[in-house]
Order: sequence, then C-alpha cells, then structure tokens
Amino acid sequence: MIESPKPFTRSPSLRSAVEPFHAMDILAEANRLRAAGTSVISLAVGQPSDPAPEIVREAAARALKDGRIGYTDALGLRTLREGLSRHYADHYGVSVPVERIAVTTGSSAGFNLAFLAMFDPGDRVAITAPGYPAYRNILRALGLEVTEISLGHEPYLTAERLRAVHAESRLDGLLFASPANPTGAVIPADALRDLVQTAAELGISTISDEIYHGLCYTGPDVTALAFDPNVTVINSFSKYYCMTGWRIGWMVLPEHLVRPIERIGQSLYISAPELSQIAAVSALTAQDVLEPIKARYEANRAYLLKRLPELGFGIAAPPDGAFYAYCDVSRHTNDSMDFARSMLAQAHVAATPGIDFDTGEGYRTMRFSYAGSMDEMIEATTRIERWLAERS
Amino acid sequence: MIESPKPFTRSPSLRSAVEPFHAMDILAEANRLRAAGTSVISLAVGQPSDPAPEIVREAAARALKDGRIGYTDALGLRTLREGLSRHYADHYGVSVPVERIAVTTGSSAGFNLAFLAMFDPGDRVAITAPGYPAYRNILRALGLEVTEISLGHEPYLTAERLRAVHAESRLDGLLFASPANPTGAVIPADALRDLVQTAAELGISTISDEIYHGLCYTGPDVTALAFDPNVTVINSFSKYYCMTGWRIGWMVLPEHLVRPIERIGQSLYISAPELSQIAAVSALTAQDVLEPIKARYEANRAYLLKRLPELGFGIAAPPDGAFYAYCDVSRHTNDSMDFARSMLAQAHVAATPGIDFDTGEGYRTMRFSYAGSMDEMIEATTRIERWLAERS
Repeated sequence: MIESPKPFTRSPSLRSAVEPFHAMDILAEANRLRAAGTSVISLAVGQPSDPAPEIVREAAARALKDGRIGYTDALGLRTLREGLSRHYADHYGVSVPVERIAVTTGSSAGFNLAFLAMFDPGDRVAITAPGYPAYRNILRALGLEVTEISLGHEPYLTAERLRAVHAESRLDGLLFASPANPTGAVIPADALRDLVQTAAELGISTISDEIYHGLCYTGPDVTALAFDPNVTVINSFSKYYCMTGWRIGWMVLPEHLVRPIERIGQSLYISAPELSQIAAVSALTAQDVLEPIKARYEANRAYLLKRLPELGFGIAAPPDGAFYAYCDVSRHTNDSMDFARSMLAQAHVAATPGIDFDTGEGYRTMRFSYAGSMDEMIEATTRIERWLAERS
Repeated sequence: MIESPKPFTRSPSLRSAVEPFHAMDILAEANRLRAAGTSVISLAVGQPSDPAPEIVREAAARALKDGRIGYTDALGLRTLREGLSRHYADHYGVSVPVERIAVTTGSSAGFNLAFLAMFDPGDRVAITAPGYPAYRNILRALGLEVTEISLGHEPYLTAERLRAVHAESRLDGLLFASPANPTGAVIPADALRDLVQTAAELGISTISDEIYHGLCYTGPDVTALAFDPNVTVINSFSKYYCMTGWRIGWMVLPEHLVRPIERIGQSLYISAPELSQIAAVSALTAQDVLEPIKARYEANRAYLLKRLPELGFGIAAPPDGAFYAYCDVSRHTNDSMDFARSMLAQAHVAATPGIDFDTGEGYRTMRFSYAGSMDEMIEATTRIERWLAERS
C-alpha cells in the first residue's frame, strides 16, 4: 500500500509575530457576549456610535439602484478628489491641487502605502508612545526599524525632543498624530510648525496622521501642510464623518510620491470601495449633521473629565481632541489587560488596555472612547463604580 | 532676513519602483476619453459589466437604512464565514470549518496577508508567466524573491516542471491560479492533485488563487483544498458574483495561519467593508441570476474564439475558464503597449497589453476580456477590424 504524503505544515513567517490589536480582541469578545444576550457597553473601539449622515447613506442607496459598483482609478474618483481639494481650501485655507490627493481604503491603506513608498527595509521611523498600535505593527511587518519615543508626562512630541532622538539614532521618518490616539492631545500650531520644519531640516520624512481632525474642542484644526507641502498627510472619513465600516480615507502627497503611490496602490488595493467613494463626496457637505454629533462628544468629554477621576482613574494628558480619555488606572491594577478582561466579563463595560498603545507603560493605563451617547457614559461609569466597589 | 529652510524632498523608496499595472493605466485613459464624450468599448479590465445581483444590492440598501456601518471582527462577519463554509460543502463537497475562513478586502488583501504571514524577506516564491501582475509587484514590495516560471506553450504548470524549477533554485512558496488570468487556462483535476501534493512533498507552501471559480466552461470547479487542507486558498466576490468595486473576498487558511492572519489583518485592514460583507452573504444565494451571466460569457467566448483568429490574433492557450482571451498579436506588432494605446486612441477599444502579464514575452500578446455584452464583442471586433485595415 502506498502511503499518502504526510501533511506538510510550514511555520508562519517571523514577521507575522506582531502584537495583536487588543482593542479588536476586546471588540470580538464584546461581540461574543452580546450575541449571547448580554448587555455590553463598549467604550473600547474608536468608532462613532452614529451612522453616517442620511445624505451619505442616500447617495450610496442611489448608486446601488443605478447599477454596477466597479473599480475606479487607483487614486480614486475625480469628484471625491475635487471635493477633498475644496475641503483643504475651505477648512484650512490651504491650497492642495487635486493631483496630490489619493483616495485610500481607510487610513489603514494610507499608512501601508506611505510606509512602502517612502521607506526601504532597515529605514528607521519614529513614532510616539503611547500611540496607535497599528503604526508599530505595520512598520515592523514591512521591515522598518521603529523608534518609539516615550512621551512620559509630555502631551506631545516637541521639535527639541525630535532633535535629541535624531542625534542619538539617525531617523529616516517621523509619524505623529494630532489630535492623538489614545490621549486626545493636540499639538498647538506653533509647536506643530517647529516640529515639521525641524524634521525637514534634519532630512526626516514626515507623515502627519490627521484622522481626528474635525474633532478638536479647544481651537481650529491646523494641518501640517500649512507649514510644509512635502509632508504626507493621512486622513479618513471614519471618525468625524462617522464612516468607519465604509473603509474610506485619503492621503495628501508630495508631488514626487504621487506616481509611486499610484503604482503600489494599483497592485495592493486596485481601488478603494467605489460605493464608499461615492458616499464620501456627500459626507463633505454634511456639517449640519456632524457638528451636533461633535457637540455631543464634547458633553461626554466634560462628563468623563469629572467622573473618571472620581473613580480613581487619573487623566494623563489634556484630551483636547478625538474622542478618548486615556487614564492612569494604577490605583486599581498593575495589569491593564487583565483589568479590561475582568471589567468586560463582570461589569459588561468594554474599554481598551493601555498595552495596545504603549508596550512599556501601558500596563497601568486604559483608554475610554466617548464616541457613544451620554446615556452610555452614565451607565458605563455607574457599572464601573459598582464593580470597583464589589471588587475591593 | 532669516531664510525659511529649503523645502526638503526625499526620494521615493526603492521598493516602490514596481511596474505600473498597465490594465489600470489603460482604464484611466479610457475613463478620460469617456469623460470627454468618446464612445469607448473596454475589454481591458477584468470586471463583469453586470451589476451585483438585485438581492445583493437590496441587502446593502437595507443595511444602509438600518444604520451604522461599522468595523467587524478582523476575520469578518460570522454569518458570511458560515455562508462560505456551506459554499465549500455545497459547491465542492469539501468540508471547511468556519474557523479557517477569513473575510478580506478583496483578493488583493488576501494576497498581501498571505505573503506577509507565510513568508519572510528573502524567501523565494514561484509564480507563472504569464500571470496576474499584482502577484509579482506585491511579492517584490514585500521583499520576497520572485521566480517566474515561463509557461511557453504549456497551458499550466505541471508537477514535473515544479520539481525541475525547485531543483535549480529552492522554492519556499508557490502561487498559481486556475482558471488563470490572463489565459483562462484550467488545470485538470489530476494535474492539480499532482501539483499540490508535489509542492507539499518538496516543502513548498502553496497558495491557490481560485478567484475565477464559478467560471469554468468545460467542467466543474475543483479546489486545491480537495487534495491538501494546508493549501492557502484565495477567492473573491469580484468575478463570478459581479462585485468588483465592493472589495470583498475571502481566504481559506491552514489552521496554523489563522491567528497570524487575524493579527496582521487587525493592523493592516482593521476589517473588510461591512456593507460589502453583509451584501456578500446574499451573493452566495444568487445563482439564478449569476448562471445566466455565465452563459452570456460562454457565448461571448465562442464568438471571440472564432472572430479573433480572423483578425490575425492567435489564441495562446485553451481559454476554458475566467473571461479572457489571451492572444498572440505578433502579426500586427512587436510592441503590445504601443498597440494597446493606438487601438484605444484610434479604434476606441481598450484591451490590456501582454507586458502586464509577462515582462518577457508579453510584447507580442494582448488580453481581451469578454465579460461584457455580445453587442460589445461584435462592435469591438468590428472596430478593430476596420482599424487594422486602415492601419495597413
């Protein structure tokens, strides 16, 4: 009898050993609990609880009736790119030609494309800690060296600090976000100008993650493009525009990166989802619906800024933008992952352990998203308060 | 006066110097001509001319009314994964547990995730030439060595040929498609079993691109999973299901790759577009609409198999599946890119130059997609005939 060959199993690649995105794991667990009938309040994932504005969904519904949803040019529908160009003029007073705008499959695709087009394996890119975990994971999966600049008690990265880091380990790239995830910290205009111009002076290529623009509670948005047209800007319709699951975002590119990004995008993505592109055109005109949602976040923010410290959760940085409060929970735990799991299992409140954002210091922090309703904020903090009391 | 620092411009990365995807460039040029009022017939891009079936679009419209389109678990909506598991039982008689199915943002995401999770930089992956150009481009952008196996006059890769190539340059991975793009060639079941089992025996990890399943005109589909559960299968709703612009596909993974793919997917994609995931569930039950579309392709195929040779375009391999005819055009040109550009500019018919699929031999080949209507096939060949006559 001839034996069939033994099933062959090769190991996964070394580069796939990235950290899991714990926020997504907590979301999956919350979804499992919900499916089993448990009432879970999620402050875990950075997504608005509101649907996209009605005119956005109507635009999508019309396109569905009209017929085929097909591939678009790799850089995106011209009408959307034109709308975005106008957005830079209207919202920032900055002139951005249509040709420098690339539509992407969410900001996720923007990061991947920027990293691939701007850097070669072995290049060193600085990010801040705490910060969005996918930065580190994508950079590493693409063979880039990551320098995590620990912010400690500083709310944001300064030009001075950048100089010091660069002097120690020569940087090829810099990526920062303002407003930031997970802290909500906003870099003031002067400090942003210094940072961007210092990076240029040092020969460091800059990526400015502006995904939380539209959600600053202390002043107008300032784009890094105002100080240097060679910065790569990444943005998205997910947050202010309430379109997370639509997977639609954009980049503003320096001229020399447009064609490389188009080429890589053709092979890696073909194009962003057409229905989302069509709908996003309408999102740019939906301020009347979106501003009241922002006002609700602002009320939630005020509530949590009062309530969280009462629960023994210290607020780390002034959360001037986005929809997150990043808290020091060391009064309650020295293991934020375990704390998050217990809080979900016992209090039925989901929030994200800080280890997602800061592998060094995140064992004593948690991120609470306040993109939900005021009722949810009240109920969540009530549940947490009761749980903490039972726990002690 | 203090001078502002000189604008700093860094070069694009070396790895971004991938070949452009000429089919997309031709599409962009065709779109520009159309926008300027020219009647263009496109046989260039691999996308059905039909919209997604009505029940698919209705499912999406209902979800739009219901409200928020949000992130899903990184591996996709459970209902869709369950539907796909049933699809393997019904369509192939193969048992695939839900847990081994990952929903992806089109097959594009499937390739990127598979390459990242299965291979490390420097690993060698074999593909065939001619073949889908994004394979080569993504592999190279991710630091993998690409061995292009030139098929010459063979319609598909045989186990024997794989052994010979492996003996010469040790392979870590193998990626093939059946039905194939651009030739439409189908690997017979026996040859597929030999190929998959030989790869396993040689310690080569296999990816089977099954995106054109559902579109085989000479027999039933056979999945590589029937011969080895450790093969990674990539598939999509783009082709048979007419959902290109929805960017929705899936993978079937060997168990040891599920968690690595989930982790990388969380950071690189977060999740596939939720609206497309919801709609795709309905697509799996739309055979009554999709089978007549396939029958139309079959009629187009019969027409072109007769008509293209009359125009001096020799058909390279038996196009038993997909919706492509891959032709030898050396009677007319030795520069397929120039030929494609002239044909578009002068005859207003778009088709794809072979150099997309075969950098070595593609200067004398063109790919014609017959996913359109019979009227388009007739009008396109009439225009080409007239143009060739005027040209000579």
